[in-house]
Amino acid sequence: MVGPPAVIEYVLGRLHEIGVTDIFGVPGDFAFPIQDAIVAHPDINWIGCCNELNAGYAADGYARVRGVGALSTTYGVGELGAISAVAGSYAEHLPVFHLTGMPSLAAQADRALVHHTLGDGEFGLFRKMADVVVGASSIISPANAVAETERLIAEALYNRRPVYMAFPSDIVNKPVLATSAPLAIPTSDARALAAAADAVLSALNMAANACALPGLLLDRLGISDSAVAFIEKTGLPFATMFADKSVIDEDHPNYIGMYDGHLMDESVREFVESADVVIAIGTMQTDFNTGAFTARLDPGRLIDIGLHRTKVGPAVFHDVEMADLLRELIARDLKPHAHNGMRPESLTAPPASQGDPITAEALYPRWEGFVRPGDIVLAETGTSSMGLAFSRLPRGARFHNQSLWGAIGWATPAALGAAVAAPDRRVVLITGEGSHQLTAQEIGQFHRLGLRPVIFVLNNNGYLIERLLCADPDIAYNDVAPWNYTELPHALGCDGWFTARVTNVGEFEAALTTAGDGERAAYIEVVTDADEAPPLAKKLHDSTKTLYHAG
Amino acid sequence: MVGPPAVIEYVLGRLHEIGVTDIFGVPGDFAFPIQDAIVAHPDINWIGCCNELNAGYAADGYARVRGVGALSTTYGVGELGAISAVAGSYAEHLPVFHLTGMPSLAAQADRALVHHTLGDGEFGLFRKMADVVVGASSIISPANAVAETERLIAEALYNRRPVYMAFPSDIVNKPVLATSAPLAIPTSDARALAAAADAVLSALNMAANACALPGLLLDRLGISDSAVAFIEKTGLPFATMFADKSVIDEDHPNYIGMYDGHLMDESVREFVESADVVIAIGTMQTDFNTGAFTARLDPGRLIDIGLHRTKVGPAVFHDVEMADLLRELIARDLKPHAHNGMRPESLTAPPASQGDPITAEALYPRWEGFVRPGDIVLAETGTSSMGLAFSRLPRGARFHNQSLWGAIGWATPAALGAAVAAPDRRVVLITGEGSHQLTAQEIGQFHRLGLRPVIFVLNNNGYLIERLLCADPDIAYNDVAPWNYTELPHALGCDGWFTARVTNVGEFEAALTTAGDGERAAYIEVVTDADEAPPLAKKLHDSTKTLYHAG
Repeated sequence: MVGPPAVIEYVLGRLHEIGVTDIFGVPGDFAFPIQDAIVAHPDINWIGCCNELNAGYAADGYARVRGVGALSTTYGVGELGAISAVAGSYAEHLPVFHLTGMPSLAAQADRALVHHTLGDGEFGLFRKMADVVVGASSIISPANAVAETERLIAEALYNRRPVYMAFPSDIVNKPVLATSAPLAIPTSDARALAAAADAVLSALNMAANACALPGLLLDRLGISDSAVAFIEKTGLPFATMFADKSVIDEDHPNYIGMYDGHLMDESVREFVESADVVIAIGTMQTDFNTGAFTARLDPGRLIDIGLHRTKVGPAVFHDVEMADLLRELIARDLKPHAHNGMRPESLTAPPASQGDPITAEALYPRWEGFVRPGDIVLAETGTSSMGLAFSRLPRGARFHNQSLWGAIGWATPAALGAAVAAPDRRVVLITGEGSHQLTAQEIGQFHRLGLRPVIFVLNNNGYLIERLLCADPDIAYNDVAPWNYTELPHALGCDGWFTARVTNVGEFEAALTTAGDGERAAYIEVVTDADEAPPLAKKLHDSTKTLYHAG
Repeated sequence: MVGPPAVIEYVLGRLHEIGVTDIFGVPGDFAFPIQDAIVAHPDINWIGCCNELNAGYAADGYARVRGVGALSTTYGVGELGAISAVAGSYAEHLPVFHLTGMPSLAAQADRALVHHTLGDGEFGLFRKMADVVVGASSIISPANAVAETERLIAEALYNRRPVYMAFPSDIVNKPVLATSAPLAIPTSDARALAAAADAVLSALNMAANACALPGLLLDRLGISDSAVAFIEKTGLPFATMFADKSVIDEDHPNYIGMYDGHLMDESVREFVESADVVIAIGTMQTDFNTGAFTARLDPGRLIDIGLHRTKVGPAVFHDVEMADLLRELIARDLKPHAHNGMRPESLTAPPASQGDPITAEALYPRWEGFVRPGDIVLAETGTSSMGLAFSRLPRGARFHNQSLWGAIGWATPAALGAAVAAPDRRVVLITGEGSHQLTAQEIGQFHRLGLRPVIFVLNNNGYLIERLLCADPDIAYNDVAPWNYTELPHALGCDGWFTARVTNVGEFEAALTTAGDGERAAYIEVVTDADEAPPLAKKLHDSTKTLYHAG
């Protein structure tokens, strides 16, 4: 007869069932029993990171690809090191499980002055901090382990938010004391669903012209295919906003380009804002998604399909799940809309000689050309993502950016997480050098794990986006330490990588060719002048009044 | 006529008055007005760091040397990146001012979905998180700026804790609307003070033999000299615990060595624990300060002088300030105690040939011999600090370790902070390589600032202290990515540094000689076998039952 599972055995088993096969983290004594179990688990890999923030970002990047992610840290010092990354996963709707170890119940009962505490005998403080930035949290015991694990899984999957689980070190290997079935993920209220579908169809059928705005929550829920089916059945043209780039393939014939308010691409703006109906599916009208709040989507003509509720103009339908509504709409009789024939442009580079400097005009089209079908592209917050966002990506290529949380430093470890999540796909990391400096040490892990990313470090001599947004672009705080970037991979243990420092178009093209053959991991420093900004970044420079709500 | 100062002008002026001449941080748009003012301030330097955690640790290291420190970060992503470092400053009693920028009041009033938020229109969340790990916090306005600044300064200095100040970006440069005088730092209740002094003297005078345990709060308050005067007037021998190492010069004739419970140095333990009276001044009985809770200080024979209260056996005297009590005691008639003649030993190295491997026995005495009078030594959590703690340091040399918070990664940026705080003193950083990997990128800042530290990276192929404390020393999570450490400084832009990788005693001694001449910054990788642990680390391996309160 098999006895009840140990607490950690149950938790890891359930995480594996929902798709976690790798857990990122940094070891620490109060977390040893958790981490011993991870290493021992036959179907889960321990992925050691250099520090906890990086582990958190890696779990975030992994969850973007796999739909779910996990990290494990020790008490206090470890969990707080990761908390900004976890907050980012909250803002960006990623279900990441944060498993942290705590001092033993015995030490807690004694209010012992143990390390990794504030020295006050308190042990519930850090959970309170986590609670601000997670969907749900729990301090696990043998009695609650099963029920709490199920509650946290349900919360993480239903709302696509991170959750926090803390384990006193002396309960990790105890048998669970009660069982509980997995919680059903809620489905829609049938009447609300039908009414919402009626309202959406009625609005769409009355519209002479309409437009869809598919959003990143489709990707988070793994239901982009449903949005494609809906778009194909209706024939609706679609644009995407910044955070939502590539949630549906950009080579889809109905794709018309990026909608970024009044800042970029006037023809897309004109089309979207003049449509009788705009149907947004899983988008958020944040500052960087709305061209610094210059987008003008008339609420009366907007259908806004959210995670759990849909608005059709002034009518709100609660308890309507996005997946259910798309399924219902596809099953209905949808009036075909004629596509207006608008197509997105690719970036085009002006003619250049080999010795020409790498201007923004020379740079971004060449990066666009480098991306292949199926690539996973991680673009850091800053000018690099703002340039690449207006490229047109080939089929199956996925663009990831931390558009709302916007923590510089995210992209480098997130690329590690994405590469671990999909070792058979090519991962392309594009980061500014200022951002790269926050988390650059994680580069060494790619090599240690046998992964072959292509990494571009855009060296424009400081924080360019900040130069564009602050009062004095040349102020000292926008400078960063001048690293010898191409020496970094080898210093971090990456033997056999292709590294290059390119300062003109010819060198850049040669490096792209070498990196493109894919035989080795590549790390390419792309040197530009300090003011080589893509158009969106320049527009933001002119839009600080709306961006910051300045009077 | 001069008008009222701007909010930030007032804040920076007051921080400068209490000793802040350098503020560490990472720029970010919501903090631009703060950071513009820092750069523009004639007497305060902006010290840009690679990331916010590192900036927090640097401010912590700076505060250890200067008595006060400061960092500035942006909203959400920035402040949460630093929050673990701020928590460390709380645990370790360091008054660090955390100045963070917030979205404008206009954006807050609109509940705008701006970047660096959770996307929920909430703006008070991160202050709540900070509140857990700071002594006091405030969201600054023109109306409250002066009064709140004074309240926070008083809290930071009275309790030696970090404080948090958040500035909506659109109020930073507005004139303050009200003034307020600096708050008086509380002094003792006169009757309690007199009674406490009576009780301490009575206990001391009745004791045939007594011993002092000066603690790190003396250093935090900047009153170590008072403790020296008290010890010299009484003739009391003194020992120190781990966190308190070197708060009084270790070449003082009354110093008898390190007291670490039953784990180390039996003669010191025997002397301390058999004394009729032990007078602890500003110590904490934490796990690593008590030899994994093996210290046995009889409460009935203990005088415990705390920050604001003193205990003499069972009697407690509240509202007694440590500085006041020491001053009062020194002014009284103190019975001289005879010193028992006990003296601490220096570490001694067994004879070794040049080609011998660098064992723990060969390593720590040579590091001890390297330290010069006046050095600032930062020793990372882990085996390196546990070995060095039992060295005997020369006059004026100060040993710093994050003994309670114990975050690996702290020492590297903290050394940067210490070097900025005291550019004329030599800073020696001793760190394990696993810890170094968390925060290693900050090395580049030393060079950028023209500082010349001596950095030792102990490469024992993984997290050695964790190998000693976990169930299976060879478990995968204790391995780290194998870096080529000596290539790192140049990759990070450090031109002209002396770097060396030493694998035997001869190479080690040669590198010590070269580094010792002080002409260049030095970065030395010291390679040992994976199990070369100093005695304390081995004892902890045998003491996990008491360390973790295991049944």
